[in-house]
Amino acid sequence: MTTTTAIAATSLAAATDLESANPPGDPLGTSAAQTRSAALEEQLARDPGRFRVLTGDRPTGRLHLGHYFGTLHNRVRLQELGTEVFVLIADYQVLTDRDVADHLAEHVENLVLDYLAIGIDPARSTIFTHSAVPALNQLLLPFLSLVSVAELGRNPTVKDEIAHSRQSSVSGLMFTYPAHQAADILFCKADLVPVGQDQLPHLELTRTIARRFNDRYGNGTSVFPEPDALLSAAPLLLGTDGTKMSKSRGNAIALSAGADETARLIRGAKTDAERQISYDPVGRPEVSSLVLLAALCLDRDPRQLADEIGGAGAAGLKSTVIEAVNEYLAPIRARREQLAQDRGHIRRILREGNERAQAVAETTLDEVRSAMNSRY
Amino acid sequence: MTTTTAIAATSLAAATDLESANPPGDPLGTSAAQTRSAALEEQLARDPGRFRVLTGDRPTGRLHLGHYFGTLHNRVRLQELGTEVFVLIADYQVLTDRDVADHLAEHVENLVLDYLAIGIDPARSTIFTHSAVPALNQLLLPFLSLVSVAELGRNPTVKDEIAHSRQSSVSGLMFTYPAHQAADILFCKADLVPVGQDQLPHLELTRTIARRFNDRYGNGTSVFPEPDALLSAAPLLLGTDGTKMSKSRGNAIALSAGADETARLIRGAKTDAERQISYDPVGRPEVSSLVLLAALCLDRDPRQLADEIGGAGAAGLKSTVIEAVNEYLAPIRARREQLAQDRGHIRRILREGNERAQAVAETTLDEVRSAMNSRY
Repeated sequence: MTTTTAIAATSLAAATDLESANPPGDPLGTSAAQTRSAALEEQLARDPGRFRVLTGDRPTGRLHLGHYFGTLHNRVRLQELGTEVFVLIADYQVLTDRDVADHLAEHVENLVLDYLAIGIDPARSTIFTHSAVPALNQLLLPFLSLVSVAELGRNPTVKDEIAHSRQSSVSGLMFTYPAHQAADILFCKADLVPVGQDQLPHLELTRTIARRFNDRYGNGTSVFPEPDALLSAAPLLLGTDGTKMSKSRGNAIALSAGADETARLIRGAKTDAERQISYDPVGRPEVSSLVLLAALCLDRDPRQLADEIGGAGAAGLKSTVIEAVNEYLAPIRARREQLAQDRGHIRRILREGNERAQAVAETTLDEVRSAMNSRY
Repeated sequence: MTTTTAIAATSLAAATDLESANPPGDPLGTSAAQTRSAALEEQLARDPGRFRVLTGDRPTGRLHLGHYFGTLHNRVRLQELGTEVFVLIADYQVLTDRDVADHLAEHVENLVLDYLAIGIDPARSTIFTHSAVPALNQLLLPFLSLVSVAELGRNPTVKDEIAHSRQSSVSGLMFTYPAHQAADILFCKADLVPVGQDQLPHLELTRTIARRFNDRYGNGTSVFPEPDALLSAAPLLLGTDGTKMSKSRGNAIALSAGADETARLIRGAKTDAERQISYDPVGRPEVSSLVLLAALCLDRDPRQLADEIGGAGAAGLKSTVIEAVNEYLAPIRARREQLAQDRGHIRRILREGNERAQAVAETTLDEVRSAMNSRY
């Protein structure tokens, strides 16, 4: 599926990062990172077992269609290719959001449910939380010794959070977040991180930390890989109000929403006055986003689909979208509902993922201790 | 032993903190903290088992007489009272000092040796390192969420380090050090921290973090105690050049120095031209520091001792000091030499301490997870 309107596929902290996507006028194809990603995709197709992927989300709420087509779908694709995928639930990175933190366990369980429902297979992929993996978190300390306060403050995401923060002051946790993210990626020696173009500087700090650690402590060998960004041409889906889809804007369609709720939300979506439906993301963003959503669900080309809908107007378009979305999501929702019956199973899967992540982190931490001459 | 010249007894990061002592004109007795400490000492005498103490050092080199009479002696005193003492070797807080980090294991082993030689008893006190206790280090993350970047930057020790830093920029590790120190103190729920007056603001941040954590997550109970400072009227010992004793100034007498080396160092110590020896810390700091050193070793009053030395001059004073120091240190040095024969034993003691600390940290981290609703 190609589209000229590309959104950065988010990996970490997806819920908020989806909102800082690339502008439509900045196609990814121009960048060196995009060229590199294309080469990586070729390698992935040839030898998927060579790679390990780290991705994840902050548990800020139920996942929606924006997340799904922006990043979740890609994770399942990588898993199905045969690449090992680590899916991090960043439960320490939501603490300053009191509404979220007060229902943390519920949010985390819902995220695991969403993952399983869309096809993340816990037998092949590792779902885990920050709070359960001390050996990962410990890496924050040596990593913090390798970056300056100035470098942390220069990180675009931190700068952005500082600028957009509703709090009077930024927490130490937010400030050190880029170094914690380096620990997320490097604890499992991930060599691929699916990111959006806006997150490239983010990953650059992880690469810097890996490089500095190897230079400083590696004794000629590489303890850590310098992970590559895997840029994906993910589609930009607007919310029902025509702005970016986001739970906090109340314009999102949750994966777990019912068919009726979905229909109601789509029927209320913003369109325009023109009766003839067309696919023109720049000129007609709201209509085109609806066309795109249906096209994604139907695995069709959005232009052809728009032509078919033709003069049926917004009502006709919406009927097509409602049917496509509900049909696409039906098996996901059924699986989710079934899984939700057994919360014990969800917790078991998370516990197993946490144990696996902790074992991997312990091994890495042991190597780190050896390299740093701190195995006493 | 009382003396009008008081130095802040250092706890954490002793090697450098000894250098930021209180000025002689600021007797500790005036402060509310001192009154509180006196009350705590009374409670300690009555019920030492009620308390848990956290103290420690950065492994920057061999300990010297300044450390010994400044803080080490007090730790042994607390241990002998029957209070549980945790002694932290802050091996992650020296990483930016390349000379130290390159010989980390050696520095850590020497510190353990010094501890055992002076009488820290591993059967009763727990000696451990940061790098071996992931569950302690993990606490840094929730704690960082409870403090702002502004608060971290305002911490006097961090400000001081920033001002005195030889590096072009301060590391993220140094910047977050006060929150890491809160993790050191709170992981074992220490309620007493022996500190110097200059370190009170430091401990205040730990108290703030404990209070905020309890308010935010405690659900009416206190997960963490708000630890008290235990100020001690520790003596100010000058180095052989008349400035503060510090390894980096090359003016220190190491606990592990030989008797001949000790004699040579003391014979070379700065004094003044007056033949009559007196104890006058303000007017004659160098001579008085030598008198004080001998008095401490002999458990004598420095004024009486000075009177006894009388007109023997600097040479007579130095002979007294050399004999007193070498006699006092002889059993410590003998024990140290004997212990140094068996490095495996030293490592075993450290491993056992690390295991004990990790078990304590795991228990605390589990409580923290429960409080934060992150036990999935």
